[in-house]
Amino acid sequence: MESVLLLDTTLRDGMQGEGISLTVADKLRIAEKLDQLGIAYIEGGFPAANPKDQEFFQHALTLPLKHAKLTAFGSTRRPTGTAKEDEGLRALIDSGAPVITIVGKAWDFHVTEALRLPFEANLDMIEDSVRWLKEHDREVIFDAEHFFDGYQHNPDYAIATLQAAVKGGVDFVTLCDTNGGTLPGQVGEIVKRVCELVSVPVGVHTHNDCELAVANTLAAVTAGATMVHGTINGIGERCGNANLASIIPNLELKMGKSCLPSPDHLRLLTQTSRFVGEIANLVPHSYQPFVGHSAFAHKGGIHVSAIARNPDTYEHVRPDLVGNERRILVSELSGLSNLQHRAAELGFDVEHRKDDVRALLAQIKELEYQGYQFEGAEASEELLFVKALGEYRDWFEFDFMRVEATKGNDSTIISQAIIKLSVDGEMVHTVAEGNGPVNALDAALRKALQPFYPSIKTMHLTDYKVRVLDEKDGTAAKVRVLIESTDGSRVWRTIGVSENVIEASWEALVDSMNYFLVRVMPEPRHAELTATTR
Amino acid sequence: MESVLLLDTTLRDGMQGEGISLTVADKLRIAEKLDQLGIAYIEGGFPAANPKDQEFFQHALTLPLKHAKLTAFGSTRRPTGTAKEDEGLRALIDSGAPVITIVGKAWDFHVTEALRLPFEANLDMIEDSVRWLKEHDREVIFDAEHFFDGYQHNPDYAIATLQAAVKGGVDFVTLCDTNGGTLPGQVGEIVKRVCELVSVPVGVHTHNDCELAVANTLAAVTAGATMVHGTINGIGERCGNANLASIIPNLELKMGKSCLPSPDHLRLLTQTSRFVGEIANLVPHSYQPFVGHSAFAHKGGIHVSAIARNPDTYEHVRPDLVGNERRILVSELSGLSNLQHRAAELGFDVEHRKDDVRALLAQIKELEYQGYQFEGAEASEELLFVKALGEYRDWFEFDFMRVEATKGNDSTIISQAIIKLSVDGEMVHTVAEGNGPVNALDAALRKALQPFYPSIKTMHLTDYKVRVLDEKDGTAAKVRVLIESTDGSRVWRTIGVSENVIEASWEALVDSMNYFLVRVMPEPRHAELTATTR
Repeated sequence: MESVLLLDTTLRDGMQGEGISLTVADKLRIAEKLDQLGIAYIEGGFPAANPKDQEFFQHALTLPLKHAKLTAFGSTRRPTGTAKEDEGLRALIDSGAPVITIVGKAWDFHVTEALRLPFEANLDMIEDSVRWLKEHDREVIFDAEHFFDGYQHNPDYAIATLQAAVKGGVDFVTLCDTNGGTLPGQVGEIVKRVCELVSVPVGVHTHNDCELAVANTLAAVTAGATMVHGTINGIGERCGNANLASIIPNLELKMGKSCLPSPDHLRLLTQTSRFVGEIANLVPHSYQPFVGHSAFAHKGGIHVSAIARNPDTYEHVRPDLVGNERRILVSELSGLSNLQHRAAELGFDVEHRKDDVRALLAQIKELEYQGYQFEGAEASEELLFVKALGEYRDWFEFDFMRVEATKGNDSTIISQAIIKLSVDGEMVHTVAEGNGPVNALDAALRKALQPFYPSIKTMHLTDYKVRVLDEKDGTAAKVRVLIESTDGSRVWRTIGVSENVIEASWEALVDSMNYFLVRVMPEPRHAELTATTR
Repeated sequence: MESVLLLDTTLRDGMQGEGISLTVADKLRIAEKLDQLGIAYIEGGFPAANPKDQEFFQHALTLPLKHAKLTAFGSTRRPTGTAKEDEGLRALIDSGAPVITIVGKAWDFHVTEALRLPFEANLDMIEDSVRWLKEHDREVIFDAEHFFDGYQHNPDYAIATLQAAVKGGVDFVTLCDTNGGTLPGQVGEIVKRVCELVSVPVGVHTHNDCELAVANTLAAVTAGATMVHGTINGIGERCGNANLASIIPNLELKMGKSCLPSPDHLRLLTQTSRFVGEIANLVPHSYQPFVGHSAFAHKGGIHVSAIARNPDTYEHVRPDLVGNERRILVSELSGLSNLQHRAAELGFDVEHRKDDVRALLAQIKELEYQGYQFEGAEASEELLFVKALGEYRDWFEFDFMRVEATKGNDSTIISQAIIKLSVDGEMVHTVAEGNGPVNALDAALRKALQPFYPSIKTMHLTDYKVRVLDEKDGTAAKVRVLIESTDGSRVWRTIGVSENVIEASWEALVDSMNYFLVRVMPEPRHAELTATTR
């Protein structure tokens, strides 16, 4: 199997994405994760431009990486002076990275417009910079900026910039579609021509401004490129860089090109994608190919029975190959067959319970009409199944709650919650403070329930999101609250909907604790609890 | 210029997307918007499967559409019986739509696995169904499901399914990459072959499971397809359908193919994309090519000065051609030059104010470190510029606030807010109820300020979002509140960050009203106000 070298630039070019900012510690965690995935080159930063990146390399070089080489990014030397005197090139050597990527101009227009230099001077800058880095025993990659635009305007000059790098002793030349405007047919033709003309291996670096970065990368590989630059989830400036989370499985599963050490590494793809998204604090892109939460989610009624029979009829690859999973969705469009399938997945025998299933379907449709959406709140959905088809009891009866937040002109704010519940026939009245009204409610509810169900202390909330349902009415409209909780090993999500954010939060909180008590709490304790409290 | 016919299936196939659900009224508003954009065919729904879709066609046929024809979607007839007796086909005719799309099997494996029928029976179903629809004077499109997989397994049978439709009198055949697994090279070759063999125009319908739906569509057009199916923003099942918001500008601006009535229609693309996203209540995909908020946003310091000099050096198309705009971002990576550029955009003369700009940069970096992110809250950012570089005064002084929510076991919940402010030296103490604590705060704040600044009643909040900043701490962590407001013509966004959601909301609310008073309120009234209250 032919192989392709991956260069991940999430930690360098990815950082140009709007709203993206990572600490040194974040970057180190991502570097380790990329190494586990089996990435060949990790471009870690631009040390001359950013002191945080210098710090990154100091620490990263001590990481016990198994697969990846670290590469530092910079520019060709300044127009005046020699490579030896150039501070930027010096910072690259000082970073200690064994591989250096330097970017230089390949579009004649940029040489005259941006640099305002004669063509020849730019070629000298490239050759001189590469040679000096090679004298310091580094592996060197030359990123030819705007190569495709440059080639289309002046192919001879664009090729001359690559040849200058080759003369300097470069190891790889990378053709960059810096503004993301090139089409796959053009990329394929140009890469093919470059591979005929240039004596070193050719790489490709694309951007997604036409929604074609993945296609352009694959076209380049088909045409002879053997190195691919990209970022996890395609994060990067404007519309992002080429998305390695899609390129990797396309190369491995569709094009017969090896780019990771083994199929077991490929199975880490989904978790790597989600890890990077979480560290970068990005809203997960549920529809993302291969690794998204929805990538193998089936909603249409006609499909579901066929998938149950033979997944190959509706899936282009098996989800487990990339570490993802198939999901059968319950939703407004669901028929009875989807719902029965889901019930079976949850462990309910519904063979002779058509009426119960039909009633549950009607209930779900009614709740969805009110604004509930169970696709992002599987635990609340599962509770509906338990209530309709399993054995369920209420763990407490609600009597009263009051939440308040007070702020004086000394600028501190205080939140407290008061609740009154009947638990196992006993009236419980608690009050607690919190960092906000929902946090106070959570604290008061725990205080009330823990004496009865001590294991509640092993779970806690990990995320809290509020979204207005009808945007036209702003804060007066219905809101949907999503809460994520965990007991350290499992994670579950619950939902609440109300015109009042406190009520919606309460509903999602109660669902979360109920779900924990019914479905998560370790079996032995659960059995014991059931025995004593029934 | 050669032209390509667009078929938008946002309202039919788009509805299979996870988390997507529209009312009939929503669908009608989107249909009108698609018509304004100049879409040729609007596939409005699947009337046999969904009563809501029957209702849609009843109303949609009365809309005064200028460009678009409405098409109803269904399947070929059942295996038994005739087309005339088939309820599904009857529902298509009864919908009144002038164009009918029917889907049928083109992959031999599906005929035997899913339908469990002899090959010939499927061909009869196709021909018979098309003929009957044509007898009812409809324009008919045949969607060949899983065509590309089918062609790769059994090319003769796949072609035979198209020929059956042609024999029935079909107007277009559409080759569907139903599971989204085909690569652009394969699509190009297969479409080219089909165009040689089939006597009617050929369409293409792709899905994005390999992040290649746009590339596959363009490859099909290059190979001879003249009709393209897709959805706005690529919404649809799993990873979505081909994204018309990217396909349209690629065809028009890059490939010299006409698909909209005029360049003025193309300028409606960004607003159409955002309109559909808003109606479908989807988190906007900021990095979306061409139409995303970040699509022409420049962050890297080295780029910004070059862009100011000559946009063509860094942009593949001019943003105004698709109705979008260039943005220069202020962020952690910003240098002074970005900030100066932004200040100039906002109308501040900073030529001789280097120290003020430097102090503002330090302030923004400090706030970003605390969790503020101004990229999604331009109004809060603009206020920082006004405070640092312009003339600003506080409209009131804060003294006290208290927010409470109370719920008894009669299940109603009541929220009220009490605030005390000093406005123009006068102490104002107000109380108001609301649907939730933030709504109550909003009401109390208006009640306090309106007697002094009556135009506040022309603005209101339109969206409210909460996000936990450090997901590991759940409701105890810092939260970021984003508020969107409007006065009916302009829209602005403000931010608040605090460990307490009430305090963060208060901060974003106050910013919103301040922004309105300083930057939005109509100039004459503003001048008058400034004169009287200074």
